[in-house]
Amino acid sequence: MRFSASFLDRASQAIRRRPTISKLIVICALSSGGVLAYADAKSDHDFETSELTRKKKLVVLGTGWAGTSFLRNLDTSQYDVQVVSPRNYFLFTPLLPSVTCGTVEPRSIVEPIRKIMHKKVGGIKFWEAECYKIDPTNKKVLCCSNIWTNMDGSGEFAVDYDYLVIALGAKPNTFNTPGVVENCHFLKEIEDTQRIRRSVMNCFERASLPELSEEDRRKNLHFVIVGGGPTGVEFAAELHDFVSEDLAKLYPTVKDLVKISVIEAGDHILTMFDKRITEFAEEKFQRDGIDVKTNFRVVKVSDKAITMTSASSREISVPYGMVVWSTGIGTRPVILDFMKQVGQADRRVLATDEWLRVPNCDGVYALGDCATISQRKVMEDISAIFRVADKDDSGTLTVKEIKDVLDDICERYPQVELYLKSKQMKDFIDLFKDANSNAVKESKELNIEEFKKALADVDSRVKMLPATAQVAAQQGNYLAKCFNKMKICEENPEGPLRMRGSGRHRFHPFRYRHFGQFAPLGGEQTAAQLPGDWVSIGHSSQWLWYSVYASKQVSWRTRFLVVSDWMRRFIHGRDSSCI
Amino acid sequence: MRFSASFLDRASQAIRRRPTISKLIVICALSSGGVLAYADAKSDHDFETSELTRKKKLVVLGTGWAGTSFLRNLDTSQYDVQVVSPRNYFLFTPLLPSVTCGTVEPRSIVEPIRKIMHKKVGGIKFWEAECYKIDPTNKKVLCCSNIWTNMDGSGEFAVDYDYLVIALGAKPNTFNTPGVVENCHFLKEIEDTQRIRRSVMNCFERASLPELSEEDRRKNLHFVIVGGGPTGVEFAAELHDFVSEDLAKLYPTVKDLVKISVIEAGDHILTMFDKRITEFAEEKFQRDGIDVKTNFRVVKVSDKAITMTSASSREISVPYGMVVWSTGIGTRPVILDFMKQVGQADRRVLATDEWLRVPNCDGVYALGDCATISQRKVMEDISAIFRVADKDDSGTLTVKEIKDVLDDICERYPQVELYLKSKQMKDFIDLFKDANSNAVKESKELNIEEFKKALADVDSRVKMLPATAQVAAQQGNYLAKCFNKMKICEENPEGPLRMRGSGRHRFHPFRYRHFGQFAPLGGEQTAAQLPGDWVSIGHSSQWLWYSVYASKQVSWRTRFLVVSDWMRRFIHGRDSSCI
Repeated sequence: MRFSASFLDRASQAIRRRPTISKLIVICALSSGGVLAYADAKSDHDFETSELTRKKKLVVLGTGWAGTSFLRNLDTSQYDVQVVSPRNYFLFTPLLPSVTCGTVEPRSIVEPIRKIMHKKVGGIKFWEAECYKIDPTNKKVLCCSNIWTNMDGSGEFAVDYDYLVIALGAKPNTFNTPGVVENCHFLKEIEDTQRIRRSVMNCFERASLPELSEEDRRKNLHFVIVGGGPTGVEFAAELHDFVSEDLAKLYPTVKDLVKISVIEAGDHILTMFDKRITEFAEEKFQRDGIDVKTNFRVVKVSDKAITMTSASSREISVPYGMVVWSTGIGTRPVILDFMKQVGQADRRVLATDEWLRVPNCDGVYALGDCATISQRKVMEDISAIFRVADKDDSGTLTVKEIKDVLDDICERYPQVELYLKSKQMKDFIDLFKDANSNAVKESKELNIEEFKKALADVDSRVKMLPATAQVAAQQGNYLAKCFNKMKICEENPEGPLRMRGSGRHRFHPFRYRHFGQFAPLGGEQTAAQLPGDWVSIGHSSQWLWYSVYASKQVSWRTRFLVVSDWMRRFIHGRDSSCI
Repeated sequence: MRFSASFLDRASQAIRRRPTISKLIVICALSSGGVLAYADAKSDHDFETSELTRKKKLVVLGTGWAGTSFLRNLDTSQYDVQVVSPRNYFLFTPLLPSVTCGTVEPRSIVEPIRKIMHKKVGGIKFWEAECYKIDPTNKKVLCCSNIWTNMDGSGEFAVDYDYLVIALGAKPNTFNTPGVVENCHFLKEIEDTQRIRRSVMNCFERASLPELSEEDRRKNLHFVIVGGGPTGVEFAAELHDFVSEDLAKLYPTVKDLVKISVIEAGDHILTMFDKRITEFAEEKFQRDGIDVKTNFRVVKVSDKAITMTSASSREISVPYGMVVWSTGIGTRPVILDFMKQVGQADRRVLATDEWLRVPNCDGVYALGDCATISQRKVMEDISAIFRVADKDDSGTLTVKEIKDVLDDICERYPQVELYLKSKQMKDFIDLFKDANSNAVKESKELNIEEFKKALADVDSRVKMLPATAQVAAQQGNYLAKCFNKMKICEENPEGPLRMRGSGRHRFHPFRYRHFGQFAPLGGEQTAAQLPGDWVSIGHSSQWLWYSVYASKQVSWRTRFLVVSDWMRRFIHGRDSSCI
């Protein structure tokens, strides 16, 4: 197949190329010989490198926030990178609720992985397939293509690895409630949003058909959201806006029959946010006519009705038009199987150490929603810490000895710092003050028992990281940087002192920095909880939300599309075609 | 459900409202009492009107080009309008091939019918359902909802009509070739384009998987288009552009294995166009490496291979990755059933008269792709024409007598005018010259036999209208205008003289005006055939194509979206995510 390019094509392609190309063209105009020489030198160099040292095989499973952030920051020239994912694109998940009602279009929040990666030196190999088994014993993953039609064989293949990065994400958690998988929509993949959008429109069209009782119309226009977390609440708000701003005009005969219910098992919605935000959200929803049912637990979903219970009432069954299930995440089967193989069969979620490594599993890393960091407790290592700090082996620690290893302890056990902050202590030394209830002199020496007593409550501050895009992206970025300096840090380790060994850890452990979280509440109002417990609610936060989400887009294409989608929504409203 | 609107909402909604609202606000500021009085007077008036005269029930089946054009131009205040269609939106079909490869997004070429109609006085009722039976005897249509989930009953209902407008469109024609429905994609609905786009991407992803032979990769990247008409050719061109401009960069390892084939049963592709265009297209496709197989007929499509024959060769079977079937249109089952009821069982397509009325069927009209106008032949009515023209009953026609009825004859039988044009005659009188091979004096009189002889070949010029959006839209517009002046024209008929009756026809018969046709050939080149056999090929026609298609959009929303899609494609290319 030959390709001809017209003038316009060429112009268009030139625009799309990176700016360095234009620099090359300038150099080329000055001295084409020089450029040719440069090009030659480069390819020679590449050739030599690949011949002399075989690159280590790095396999990445998944192209979500963690996987993509890892790949974007990775120096791909150092490794033979292979990516396996059933999705050949990165999905900007925080905008999923906006897509359900057409505020933003699906294509505006996806970017092909090949496009993100195709300018990287060395490149990556991408296989659109699902990993169905991880085999750490033989260092390989078994994969199966989902698009294996019109071909012989089964579409299965194995990929060997030296390093494996597991970033497979999670699946929706149904708590084994009967009928949920069959009758509810989830809100995790781009296809979910398309199904929800079609389903909302179908409910309106169905409720508008002739020869229906008002009861049937009401039933069809009852939208139920199970789960009062950020996703469920944002979807409820989006749906309310869609109905009031767009559909009410087009379906005037049924618009007053619409009901939106949010069912939450806890006392309040948005419990992960500050109390002020929760209260504001509940009040706003009440004003908007969104029915928030707290302390209700869904026990069954049939094709016609949703059944729930509460402490104060018997089982009630409510007919519905559509249910969206958004109650948190569960572990994927392939991860559960892998956990059995690596001795984590009794855990709910795959655990890694603070360097995102899966314990007892050479070269395997896990990050994002599919794993959780199991922070080592201070009390487990207390004797080792004491031994490391006690340089002169005197059996007691001087304040100076403690100060010498303080930074390493705080880095290795971040709960120490959190504990100090929570108790409003300025210094590590204050800990011992607290324990002994009196002033500590610089000359004071502590024995192991006193040391233990002082640190006894520190581990209560160990915090699990939330399953958010922000955490996954930071983990991906962190791990990529570790991989990039793998060789350098082998010789010059940069991490804290090893407490139960000698020398230093190769890398700093992963530390999460929280930049805040948004909860869009509809009607151009957003609640924002920023670091330092700074809370902002209203239209100004909505503009902050617009700017942050536009700036966080993975490419200029999606940024252009998302912003023009917002403009389009503002001028022309949302589309209500059933497609 | 109550709706609250923030400042931004209100601003946004105000922009979307029609400008008259702002005038009302101005009046309101001047004299709020006056406005209230006006509002009261208006609703009283409405009430009286609806009480005194029951509006006739007008049922429209279908929301394609014909149905939508009819609805947009209809004075809905005169009728009780009900629309039945399985699609709640109008689809701008000429851009379907652009959507298959992501040059334009699906939502950019659809507009909800309710949105198109919601500002119309009186409004319309829309039922999202499929009409499965037309019952002209009882003047009702039977419909069935396609979205009848989670409801009791069957979702069936009947709609009574006084006037019925059938604009149901057509279905793809498979010529009963085995395996086509199961294995091929069509290109008629918006869902088809989404499936094709996903399928193209799946072929590329599948061909890129590890452990495949080159033969398997080639097979997966063989794209077959059956049918060398405008749709098939445009799709082939779009696909070629998509591959060469976007996918070649992202799939460098397999890009040279891509093959696009166009299979055409005739001697050439684009046979409905001028020979210059056909030749240019065939040459361009050859340069682009698109394999055009003319004189090949497809006899079977299995899940792995497509089988075809030609006069010169035995059956050949070619493996493929994807087949798009685009060989013309067939009649829908509901129309075939209706044809049986109205005595057209032996016809292939539903026939109407020149006023788009279904013969022997009171109040039923058919237009667009589901029907064809059966032009009355001059020779069938020759005696009646003679009798009407022969005012003095002399048994002979003078030239003056002929001239008196000439306009009516030409309007009733447009083939007469076409015949004169084709023979390069300036005047009707020349016809008689031609027949008698000598000059005709003004005083000459013709008897019936001479009259018949002169008009003998005229009916050879009867032309079937093509099944295009242009024809359907003009028919819808024409019929709406007829409906709008139904009462006026009942008293003052505007049509030509009735030949086989007395008086005049109520309306002018439908006349199609051809504004030209485009054939986009890829690489920013388009062939345009404009009225007067004016042919233009190349980049300038592409810009004409852009302007015409942008201006023909049904709403400002779709116009804005289509133009911004073109810009987005030009700057960022097409998206290759498998969604």
